[in-house]
Amino acid sequence: MLSPETLDTIVHRGVSDIISRDEFIRLLQSGRPLRLKMGFDPSRPDIHLGHTVGLRKLRQLQDLGHQVILIVGDWTAQIGDPSGQSATRPMLTHEQVMENAQSYLRQFFKVVDRDRTQVVEQSEWFGKFTLADVIGLTGRFTVAQFLQRSDFAQRFAEQRPIAITELLYPLLQAYDSVVIESDVEFGGTDQMFNLLVGRELQEMMGQRPQQCFMMPILPGTDGVQKMSKSLDNYIAVDESPADMYGKVMSIADNMIVRYYELLTDLPSTDLADLERDIELDTVNPMEHKKRLALDITSQFHDPAAADAAQAHFERVVQGRNLPDEMPEVSLASLREQSNAPDGAIRADRLLVAAGLAASNAEARRLLSQGAVEILPSSGDPYRLEGDRAEVSPAAGDVLRAGRRRFIRIVEP
Amino acid sequence: MLSPETLDTIVHRGVSDIISRDEFIRLLQSGRPLRLKMGFDPSRPDIHLGHTVGLRKLRQLQDLGHQVILIVGDWTAQIGDPSGQSATRPMLTHEQVMENAQSYLRQFFKVVDRDRTQVVEQSEWFGKFTLADVIGLTGRFTVAQFLQRSDFAQRFAEQRPIAITELLYPLLQAYDSVVIESDVEFGGTDQMFNLLVGRELQEMMGQRPQQCFMMPILPGTDGVQKMSKSLDNYIAVDESPADMYGKVMSIADNMIVRYYELLTDLPSTDLADLERDIELDTVNPMEHKKRLALDITSQFHDPAAADAAQAHFERVVQGRNLPDEMPEVSLASLREQSNAPDGAIRADRLLVAAGLAASNAEARRLLSQGAVEILPSSGDPYRLEGDRAEVSPAAGDVLRAGRRRFIRIVEP
Repeated sequence: MLSPETLDTIVHRGVSDIISRDEFIRLLQSGRPLRLKMGFDPSRPDIHLGHTVGLRKLRQLQDLGHQVILIVGDWTAQIGDPSGQSATRPMLTHEQVMENAQSYLRQFFKVVDRDRTQVVEQSEWFGKFTLADVIGLTGRFTVAQFLQRSDFAQRFAEQRPIAITELLYPLLQAYDSVVIESDVEFGGTDQMFNLLVGRELQEMMGQRPQQCFMMPILPGTDGVQKMSKSLDNYIAVDESPADMYGKVMSIADNMIVRYYELLTDLPSTDLADLERDIELDTVNPMEHKKRLALDITSQFHDPAAADAAQAHFERVVQGRNLPDEMPEVSLASLREQSNAPDGAIRADRLLVAAGLAASNAEARRLLSQGAVEILPSSGDPYRLEGDRAEVSPAAGDVLRAGRRRFIRIVEP
Repeated sequence: MLSPETLDTIVHRGVSDIISRDEFIRLLQSGRPLRLKMGFDPSRPDIHLGHTVGLRKLRQLQDLGHQVILIVGDWTAQIGDPSGQSATRPMLTHEQVMENAQSYLRQFFKVVDRDRTQVVEQSEWFGKFTLADVIGLTGRFTVAQFLQRSDFAQRFAEQRPIAITELLYPLLQAYDSVVIESDVEFGGTDQMFNLLVGRELQEMMGQRPQQCFMMPILPGTDGVQKMSKSLDNYIAVDESPADMYGKVMSIADNMIVRYYELLTDLPSTDLADLERDIELDTVNPMEHKKRLALDITSQFHDPAAADAAQAHFERVVQGRNLPDEMPEVSLASLREQSNAPDGAIRADRLLVAAGLAASNAEARRLLSQGAVEILPSSGDPYRLEGDRAEVSPAAGDVLRAGRRRFIRIVEP
């Protein structure tokens, strides 16, 4: 029997909804190893922390003896993801699928237990699917049912195109559940419709209907939108230790508790304490964030590397003592005034153009004193040495001259 | 070059619409043999005169050197016809398809020239259709486009179910056009949407888009609803000469011109004369109808058989000189009063029960004089002979006693 605490963690923490929670609990307590289904789109092989919310849930269940079946969605990938684009995509070659799957699995197994995972490709069954099979599937559902899916409903109402193919997407995903005899399927909240079609199809085909396990959406580092590669607010599981640590440090303070909840094993009682601490402002949030960043970084790298990332952060980022505000100068205007439309810029001219030196002579003196530094938006700062130094600054870099004079270089 | 008269007959007579008429005329005049596509549903192998409107058009074009390709729609039949029912039907076995196709072809070739007809089955291509092929097709059209088809639009608006499979129907039919490289597809006016999808798909796939040739609907013998087996207002091409002749004779007078137009080769000038005759009521419509019935019967039977059918009609039906109105007696009450709840009825009792004789004695006298006759609703009349005759009359039969006494036996 599961302890009440374990059960509570499994069915409530990092869970948006389970259909149905009661049935799922009964299954869990039946003692039978469950078949946990998760699909993956081989055209999108990169995993970020938003995805690990679900992977961590799989891992928790594997640690209780359950089996993960990972579906390589090479056929659904061809149709395109259900969230909007209507054009079908060219079928990936088998080589591309295999290559992306390898890349995905390398990341996937940073969280999920390889020994309790079976990887299967949709091609195993859809590669020999006939028109009769398609008719058998499509005859079971109506157009109106499928147009109720929220993204379809919205596009239909706005008269944006929905390719007939897109109606096949949920059907294929559902058929996967039948083939692998899924007990539980995992997906984001936006997957609810598709997971329910699987549940319904299994029942129609004489199987016990799967449980639909929906995970919450993790906000990105901006704390506003969902974590997503295309929004560039993501933390990849493949980040270097320093980048992973630094990116976690960049999240908004109001995300700290949520990240602890969804991305760490911090006990629920400690989570409550943390929430109160932050509410009452008793501890500098920076300290909580550093513990969080260390915890997360340690999950994907060895402890020494995580510690080194923390030390790096303390030295390079915290040690900078940058002012909260500083003047901004556009890269374009710096280039124009330095007479360097492209390529490297002479450092003395850059200082004058940036307004950090009154004359070329002053600029050269600062440079020869070693008092000029570039602080890139990420990575280590470096000094501009010698009065003939050249430099290729980027937007986001900070330029420091002496102790207290800074400018931030901005687009364009 | 085609004569203007021939061209006019082809593109206007027995034509509801052609998309596009101009392109079709250019194709006709190009001198190239055209590929004329017609589909047939092997679950409905019976042909009636309503279908022959299109078959006659095919024959006209064959006589100009064009080629008919008849598609045995064994796959679309499985999905169900597009006009309403949503349930998919079980796939016919190959044996059933072949049997029905044989039956259909026997009727089809009563009108269409066998030598310029190629018969192909959808199984030739759909039997090896893959999921990738399905995705390739369904990706080209949108749900909204298909929901514009009038029967879909109506069902969708009325919240009646449309199986997703049904969206495949027009796609499969369209794909047939691509496979056989159709130049012209023929169908009823209710087929316009499906024919246009074929046209569009061919263009998408780099073929010259087919012409869509829509035939008008032939009213049934009731002159009100479309001719249809299920409405029992049809004349099958398989009718015996006498039945075919008799059924044509039963059409309403206001249908005479329309039947001449759609079902005979009566020249258009004669058609105009006929129309005027009927309008001015200069000739008894019965005479026009007899010429029509002889013409149609001769198309499906040899001239001698058609003449015999006409002679039979004149003798049996016209010769009866039945009054326009006569008393009606229900079969049930005849049986009750004759004390014959089922089986044969003694003729003398029947005559008394029908009110045609005042007593059994009078009835027996009439019978022994050979003055009693049954006139079945179809078929030859027969005399009841001898005063112990027995008879099993049916609803619709007329019972005559002497010259001028009639009753009609009616349900129940």
